Amino acid sequence: MTAIVNTTAADEAAGRPAVTVLGLGQMGAAIAGALLAAGHPVTVWNRTAEKAAPLVEKGAVLAGSVAEAVAASPLVLAVVLDYPALYGILDPASAELKGKALVNLVSGSPEQADEAVEWAARHGLNYLDGAIMTTPPGVGTREVMFLYSGDQAVFDAHHTALDVLGEPLYLGAEPGLAALYDVNLLGLMWATMSGWLHGTAVATAEGTRAVDFTEVAIRWLGTVGNFIRRYAAQVDEGAYPGDDATVDVQIATIEHQLHAARARGVDNRLPELLKTLMVEANAKGHGQDSFGSVIEVLRQGAR
Amino acid sequence: MTAIVNTTAADEAAGRPAVTVLGLGQMGAAIAGALLAAGHPVTVWNRTAEKAAPLVEKGAVLAGSVAEAVAASPLVLAVVLDYPALYGILDPASAELKGKALVNLVSGSPEQADEAVEWAARHGLNYLDGAIMTTPPGVGTREVMFLYSGDQAVFDAHHTALDVLGEPLYLGAEPGLAALYDVNLLGLMWATMSGWLHGTAVATAEGTRAVDFTEVAIRWLGTVGNFIRRYAAQVDEGAYPGDDATVDVQIATIEHQLHAARARGVDNRLPELLKTLMVEANAKGHGQDSFGSVIEVLRQGAR
Ligand SMILES: NC(=O)c1ccc[n+]([C@@H]2O[C@H](COP(=O)([O-])OP(=O)(O)OC[C@H]3O[C@@H](n4cnc5c(N)ncnc54)[C@H](OP(=O)(O)O)[C@@H]3O)[C@@H](O)[C@H]2O)c1
Ligand SMILES: NC(=O)c1ccc[n+]([C@@H]2O[C@H](COP(=O)([O-])OP(=O)(O)OC[C@H]3O[C@@H](n4cnc5c(N)ncnc54)[C@H](OP(=O)(O)O)[C@@H]3O)[C@@H](O)[C@H]2O)c1
Repeated sequence: MTAIVNTTAADEAAGRPAVTVLGLGQMGAAIAGALLAAGHPVTVWNRTAEKAAPLVEKGAVLAGSVAEAVAASPLVLAVVLDYPALYGILDPASAELKGKALVNLVSGSPEQADEAVEWAARHGLNYLDGAIMTTPPGVGTREVMFLYSGDQAVFDAHHTALDVLGEPLYLGAEPGLAALYDVNLLGLMWATMSGWLHGTAVATAEGTRAVDFTEVAIRWLGTVGNFIRRYAAQVDEGAYPGDDATVDVQIATIEHQLHAARARGVDNRLPELLKTLMVEANAKGHGQDSFGSVIEVLRQGAR
Repeated sequence: MTAIVNTTAADEAAGRPAVTVLGLGQMGAAIAGALLAAGHPVTVWNRTAEKAAPLVEKGAVLAGSVAEAVAASPLVLAVVLDYPALYGILDPASAELKGKALVNLVSGSPEQADEAVEWAARHGLNYLDGAIMTTPPGVGTREVMFLYSGDQAVFDAHHTALDVLGEPLYLGAEPGLAALYDVNLLGLMWATMSGWLHGTAVATAEGTRAVDFTEVAIRWLGTVGNFIRRYAAQVDEGAYPGDDATVDVQIATIEHQLHAARARGVDNRLPELLKTLMVEANAKGHGQDSFGSVIEVLRQGAR
């Protein structure tokens, strides 16, 4: 243990502040591991204590209770499964929470983040909400984003540690913003991955390898990124000039996709729905507008 | 006219071969313009001849007929609206086509490309099929892809000119491949853009600007690219280990998205369908597998 204590002291002296990580599932373990690798003194706690062993071997201190873990560091990262688990472990440690900075990395809805702010205020906690935009293998690389919203003082004060996890983006003081971005970015992910799988099902039906189609698809996503950047500005302006490609041209073109997929026995529910959205945009008068105008269909109300 | 002739001779001497462009709509004009800018001698033809004026000003030669245009260069690029238009303009010029290289950039289905190969053989043409993976403003930059399939000798012999248009990717000897990739990449684009618009509709409901959400979304597409690269290898292996994120976890998480969108009055048909696909993957025994396993649902047959 002496070696660990020495490392800890040296790291703190070198400006690497102590961090506590609550929850050592797949994600919590990756986060604690990245902080250790960067030289932060790390205290950990997990309901199932055995999961801490590999981290303790790398220098983490295993706390005997949540209260002890919270007391060990000015910054506490929570990475348990959900909000009930979060409140379940932190409520009994109320006394130690006062004045601490809590960065809540538990996934949830914007409304849950808003509730957590009130809960944090009752406990005298400085609260920052976070969203992890990666799977565990990406943690600790600058390629991935961690989104934050809420108390900017927490974000600024603990930049050194947050920098280790991925690229930290502060979205604003509204605490629900990170969760709002999170659910919508995941929605973009499911749509993109489903569209890619549909194309992959069609392309592989005749012997093309999925990896070959996919490398081209990944490059193409860069071009699609340029299209959506252009349409985003149109959305903010509320005008969608179709000077690059119109909804009507895309309605005509999607028939080729539907045909190719049908001929290869691939389920067309996804492209059929996407065509329906475009046809509805046309019906609203957007036939000569850009694809950005489809947002007017989506905004017309939940079903 | 003397100046143009001189330029042409100098460019040919400098290794920039002559190219003919048939069709000067938005795309054909961009292609002819990029070739001129790179120093190729360019002959053009368009049904509506007046559209050639800006290109002629930059040094293009306007042919009086399709036959004359085809005779002017060893390489002919066709960029008219569709296949009927293509056959309509080229059939009367049969005599001049023999021995020429035709790069067909008209969009269509893989089946139409296959038919064009037979048509080209009847005319003694060397035929390469192409797909343009950009809107006109992207033409002439290395950021964008032009896909080709069919006669590799045409691709190799005319690399200099094809290089000017964008990054040329040769997919294989099967002529329908470029069109097959094209329709499936467009499908990926519609899915991605629709998912992005859905997220944008939700995010902007509370005052976030579309451009702010979109910059984060574009970065996130890079991370999603890493996910699909991983799942592509799984698709080729037919095994989908869920060691990063399982279908069941995503089914649970998508509820947050559905809830956030419903609370903001946004149409949920797209995420509801994506959830259905995941629920069907679970029903097929893929609950603990990765999202890649959803391809098994899509492959189960067209509806
Ligand atoms: N994995 C990802 O790719 C990913 C990506 C982005 C965000 N996230 C988010 O990160 C958080 C953790 O995810 P994970 O992947 O690490 O999940 P996980 O591997 O299932 O781990 C869950 C963690 O929560 C703890 N836990 C669950 N219920 C608890 C309770 N009632 N009381 C105390 N502790 C409890 C578990 O403790 P035990 O070890 O004792 O079971 C474990 O530490 C979730 O909110 C998730 O949405 C994960
Ligand atoms: N624009 C894009 O973003 C884009 C992207 C990828 C692929 N493409 C493909 O590129 C091709 C051309 O598209 P575009 O955007 O340039 O379209 P466009 O602006 O509508 O131009 C259509 C062209 O086809 C000609 N044409 C139409 N019908 C004809 C006929 N029956 N006989 C002779 N010529 C005829 C037009 O001649 P007139 O000038 O006389 O009408 C014009 O030159 C299409 O296959 C399109 O799918 C376009």
